[in-house]
Amino acid sequence: MKVSELGERALIERIGRRIPAAPTTLIVGIGDDAAVVASDRGALQVLTTDALVEGIHFERRFSSPGDIGYKALAVNVSDVAAMGGAARFALLSLMLPAEVTVPEIDELLDGFLELAGILNVAVAGGNITRSPGPLVVDVTVIGAVKPRKILRRSGGRPGDMLYVSGSLGAGAAGLGWLRANGDSPDSLPEDGLLAECVQRHRRPEPRARLGALLGRNRAASACIDLSDGLADSVRQLAMASGAGARIDARFLPVHPGAAAWFSAQRADAVAESVKGGDDYELLFAVPPNSRGRLKAVHRLSRQVLLNRIGELTADGDVTLIRDGVPTELPAGYVHF
Amino acid sequence: MKVSELGERALIERIGRRIPAAPTTLIVGIGDDAAVVASDRGALQVLTTDALVEGIHFERRFSSPGDIGYKALAVNVSDVAAMGGAARFALLSLMLPAEVTVPEIDELLDGFLELAGILNVAVAGGNITRSPGPLVVDVTVIGAVKPRKILRRSGGRPGDMLYVSGSLGAGAAGLGWLRANGDSPDSLPEDGLLAECVQRHRRPEPRARLGALLGRNRAASACIDLSDGLADSVRQLAMASGAGARIDARFLPVHPGAAAWFSAQRADAVAESVKGGDDYELLFAVPPNSRGRLKAVHRLSRQVLLNRIGELTADGDVTLIRDGVPTELPAGYVHF
Repeated sequence: MKVSELGERALIERIGRRIPAAPTTLIVGIGDDAAVVASDRGALQVLTTDALVEGIHFERRFSSPGDIGYKALAVNVSDVAAMGGAARFALLSLMLPAEVTVPEIDELLDGFLELAGILNVAVAGGNITRSPGPLVVDVTVIGAVKPRKILRRSGGRPGDMLYVSGSLGAGAAGLGWLRANGDSPDSLPEDGLLAECVQRHRRPEPRARLGALLGRNRAASACIDLSDGLADSVRQLAMASGAGARIDARFLPVHPGAAAWFSAQRADAVAESVKGGDDYELLFAVPPNSRGRLKAVHRLSRQVLLNRIGELTADGDVTLIRDGVPTELPAGYVHF
Repeated sequence: MKVSELGERALIERIGRRIPAAPTTLIVGIGDDAAVVASDRGALQVLTTDALVEGIHFERRFSSPGDIGYKALAVNVSDVAAMGGAARFALLSLMLPAEVTVPEIDELLDGFLELAGILNVAVAGGNITRSPGPLVVDVTVIGAVKPRKILRRSGGRPGDMLYVSGSLGAGAAGLGWLRANGDSPDSLPEDGLLAECVQRHRRPEPRARLGALLGRNRAASACIDLSDGLADSVRQLAMASGAGARIDARFLPVHPGAAAWFSAQRADAVAESVKGGDDYELLFAVPPNSRGRLKAVHRLSRQVLLNRIGELTADGDVTLIRDGVPTELPAGYVHF
């Protein structure tokens, strides 16, 4: 059945029934004019909104409805994590083309709720409307952060070390493979490492725990996520902190699947991984005297991969050292 | 210049510059990964999201960009008011077709900020992305409400009186006139009362003050806004309260411009005004022993028009009394 035949009210009721029992902090949930929630005692509210638009951020021939729902929450949680916050509530705003079916909406919600369950995020409410064009999934996440534990982009100082979590380039390589070879949401390369990249494009893992720990332990002076690629994030963090940055290409954790993919395409794997969007890793600055705090965060973060890739500098330049030679850091991913 | 030529970053900076000085409760505003806000002491957070989609909720040939921005905030504030809350912060998520120009975005933002200024709502953040289809303005509003002052839909009891604010049918009549006669965002009928209806469609006034007062004074047992028309709201409130409802057509405050318009169309003005969407009035239930509180609210609300239109009943029926004869209340506005 198409959603246009079911109708908005029935669809909202259907969604309401699929959402698991709410925490006691959700005072009024789906079904009233607005939601009412209680925030953590002594905490401030972190607010972020990010939309996935069909044809811009995803293609229905590359990603399943479940992937799209999962990713729509993931990209928002990534932003909350980059502030040092913990995601608590989500609002799900859906714009649905007439041909979308009810099972597809069920799947989309399943993907959304799968990640929400893992991260303990409660669906507080949302909105459903028709779309005369693309499928749009616009999500708002409300998180909590203690007043003195906020991670801004602007807190870095020259001499702070720059770290990045996880690996780089997987999202871009995965999308590249799909564009060349993908013909369904089930398409996967045979190579396991490249398949990891495709999965990273479809279902990125936001660094929720790491971000909250970096904030709570005050290990980082500044933090940003990599939604638009490492190069863009380094520029943004450096500029906001009134500093320059020097990145050493030797230490960049290029995903091995991405390295193989880009090399096979006769592209520069380092440059592509640095430019590529869709890596929802965290880039953060650590003052020299906070290395002990960072070790504690690393232990508590279940040993998430952390690589020191460079440092903030006193001059305004943003450089990438390759084979000992300073080069200009490539421009970031431009998605507008 | 088109927004696609300006680019996302420059557009965000431009928007940031137009936003007035933020209140001290906005700890981190536009320009970081997410916003951080402080909520009112002892208050809960009211959360709502509502999107205006071109071709579904507005037409660019009937509404100016400023109207669209204004209305996108208004419909969200209306939902917060219906919970008894006061709007505090807004997130503005824009999906922009490539042909939208920078002056149009400026205008849209001006309309949004005009209402935000009137209501003391701070723009905390948002998101901008391209749209391969319609212009979409998706807004999230975060409000404040004290724990014991929440106005749910479900708090009504048989015997409670039903009141509605303002007038009915203006939004639907205004849209009707535009569909028949409108050819630009400046189009207005010569008749002043009908012109009021067209303006109501373009820039509805949410009952922000009334909603907050009804909550604060605990004058209402239940409340809902009229985004989908009075008939729909009466049904929703009655059903949520486990009651029926009886509305007396004699007491319905049909807008005189709407009455004239629908009569000229040989339509039933009462039925059309009861079905018509886009009236952002409040429908609320008042227990018999709360009439004194309601008088206080009326005085404090700057004498907003309040009409007692009926009552909640013990049976499950929802009826409209016309000339002394009970009839079925028409179905509400179906927008999906």
